[in-house]
Amino acid sequence: MATVEQQKLLNQLELFLKEATSEEQSLVSDIITGLEAKRNGSFRTYIAALTQMEGCFLDNGDYEVRLPIQPLIENPLKMTHGGITATLLDTTMGSLVNRSLPVSQAAVTSEMNIHYIKPGIGQFLRCVASLSHKGNNLCITEAKVFNDQEKLIAMATATFFIIARPTE
Amino acid sequence: MATVEQQKLLNQLELFLKEATSEEQSLVSDIITGLEAKRNGSFRTYIAALTQMEGCFLDNGDYEVRLPIQPLIENPLKMTHGGITATLLDTTMGSLVNRSLPVSQAAVTSEMNIHYIKPGIGQFLRCVASLSHKGNNLCITEAKVFNDQEKLIAMATATFFIIARPTE
Amino acid sequence: MATVEQQKLLNQLELFLKEATSEEQSLVSDIITGLEAKRNGSFRTYIAALTQMEGCFLDNGDYEVRLPIQPLIENPLKMTHGGITATLLDTTMGSLVNRSLPVSQAAVTSEMNIHYIKPGIGQFLRCVASLSHKGNNLCITEAKVFNDQEKLIAMATATFFIIARPTE
Amino acid sequence: MATVEQQKLLNQLELFLKEATSEEQSLVSDIITGLEAKRNGSFRTYIAALTQMEGCFLDNGDYEVRLPIQPLIENPLKMTHGGITATLLDTTMGSLVNRSLPVSQAAVTSEMNIHYIKPGIGQFLRCVASLSHKGNNLCITEAKVFNDQEKLIAMATATFFIIARPTE
Repeated sequence: MATVEQQKLLNQLELFLKEATSEEQSLVSDIITGLEAKRNGSFRTYIAALTQMEGCFLDNGDYEVRLPIQPLIENPLKMTHGGITATLLDTTMGSLVNRSLPVSQAAVTSEMNIHYIKPGIGQFLRCVASLSHKGNNLCITEAKVFNDQEKLIAMATATFFIIARPTE
Repeated sequence: MATVEQQKLLNQLELFLKEATSEEQSLVSDIITGLEAKRNGSFRTYIAALTQMEGCFLDNGDYEVRLPIQPLIENPLKMTHGGITATLLDTTMGSLVNRSLPVSQAAVTSEMNIHYIKPGIGQFLRCVASLSHKGNNLCITEAKVFNDQEKLIAMATATFFIIARPTE
Repeated sequence: MATVEQQKLLNQLELFLKEATSEEQSLVSDIITGLEAKRNGSFRTYIAALTQMEGCFLDNGDYEVRLPIQPLIENPLKMTHGGITATLLDTTMGSLVNRSLPVSQAAVTSEMNIHYIKPGIGQFLRCVASLSHKGNNLCITEAKVFNDQEKLIAMATATFFIIARPTE
Repeated sequence: MATVEQQKLLNQLELFLKEATSEEQSLVSDIITGLEAKRNGSFRTYIAALTQMEGCFLDNGDYEVRLPIQPLIENPLKMTHGGITATLLDTTMGSLVNRSLPVSQAAVTSEMNIHYIKPGIGQFLRCVASLSHKGNNLCITEAKVFNDQEKLIAMATATFFIIARPTE
């Protein structure tokens, strides 16, 4: 049985849903599904879970992350928010570097430079990152973001500083 | 009365809440409150509403945005995700530029360069942006992010391109 | 016959050469040859003439500039000065963009981001630039600098703003 | 007495001077004076000697470098070459960081981001750099370039990596 606090949240959501647009209803569905996915370990962060970013290595050693475009991540002009494109770029480049390091090490972003080229619209964005330089202390990466028509939306470079992995 | 789809969402949330940690329960509460705030117009984007970014002009003409630190925006190391710091920087600089333009114009981010200096931890982050150059076509801004101890967490510069405001 | 001022310069140089190291003598030779090359139109700037930067289009549309490494361009650690590497990058990317425009237009550098990766040593540096995006107002380019062993020395991206070509 | 090689250089210069414009003659004078200044130790690099960059600490701990504008450093549009502005920025920020370190350490530029704002014209450029963050491994700096009317010409930030000073 739900606690008082939980019942309050359910009532609050019920009230919100009563007048919900289909966009809002779909958003609530995505958010709850994202929270479940974060709990069961499918994602390491709430941001990745709510935005449904999913990554994998490509055959050539590059790393790719896909991001579905949804109202949650749009700016007032109905395009993907520049901060979310930055999140996608940082996530893709950071994942690539961290997966290239021995388990005793981790990489933190020291610097990132982003060029925004076209509005992020369509079904999804696809970011591909490659390692430009792997040093003992610093790694340099570059990445490009494409839309679902394979047009270049944004590009970035970043500097990562290598540290001993913090014990969690 | 709730539709079938709405009842399904309420059941899904009830199930999620049954085993929720206090962090998860607090997160659900913040999200629903954020969705309500977006609907009633307190925020222009879901990102701003969920992260509760709030901005204002300072007396010297700079623009400031505050961002509470909460589990929703943390990376796996329990620090503010670099993409969220980028979102805060882009939002603060973009708000400053857009509020400096006549209503017939809008500014889009063309380029942003971010230096990450310290982990974003504590109660909140505070970002302050100033206009370095205002041209007819391009504006250049700079911004700094501080933690609740007034330590410098990140800094950035950005180039904005001025366009005719799209009619919504 | 030389004017008084010219004779004074010749005497000054003669005095300088009397105790010149072979590096200094070679430098003087390169400088005079560079000044001649600038005068006869082989180079458009003194910087290009003195540093002997020479560029050409590659078959794939990229633009390449080669820079011999000489004492003139070294920093106190006997490596190519970071500012000269920046000059090489700006020259290569700017040449590429300007040669891609109709004669009525010119491109000015609005922003450049450089990553320095290895010391610039050896016989020469080779910079290759490609056009990432060509817009009506802004062009985005990327470039890489290699040493004579084809190792990556530096990389950069830049934003160029397109203007009507000033009448000279 | 001059060697054969030295006499050849003097003849070459005499020939060049015969048809020299006043700009060319003035340039030759500046170059020879610069070479002498480099030899007697007034400058640590030929670039600084030929461009006559001179730096000093300001009372607030910032570092300033002045650069006279002369034909040697101009681009084809008769403005200061963007690479020279980059050299000025890198020199000013690098000098600041290196002078802030113990003698056993040196700083190398890892990354630099430059915004070009106005053409570099007039009598001289003045660059002022300040230290934004001083870490054990990385230092972050920012700098601004002004013309002789105190208008902002360019601004930059940079990341320096701290190394053990190489023994010369």
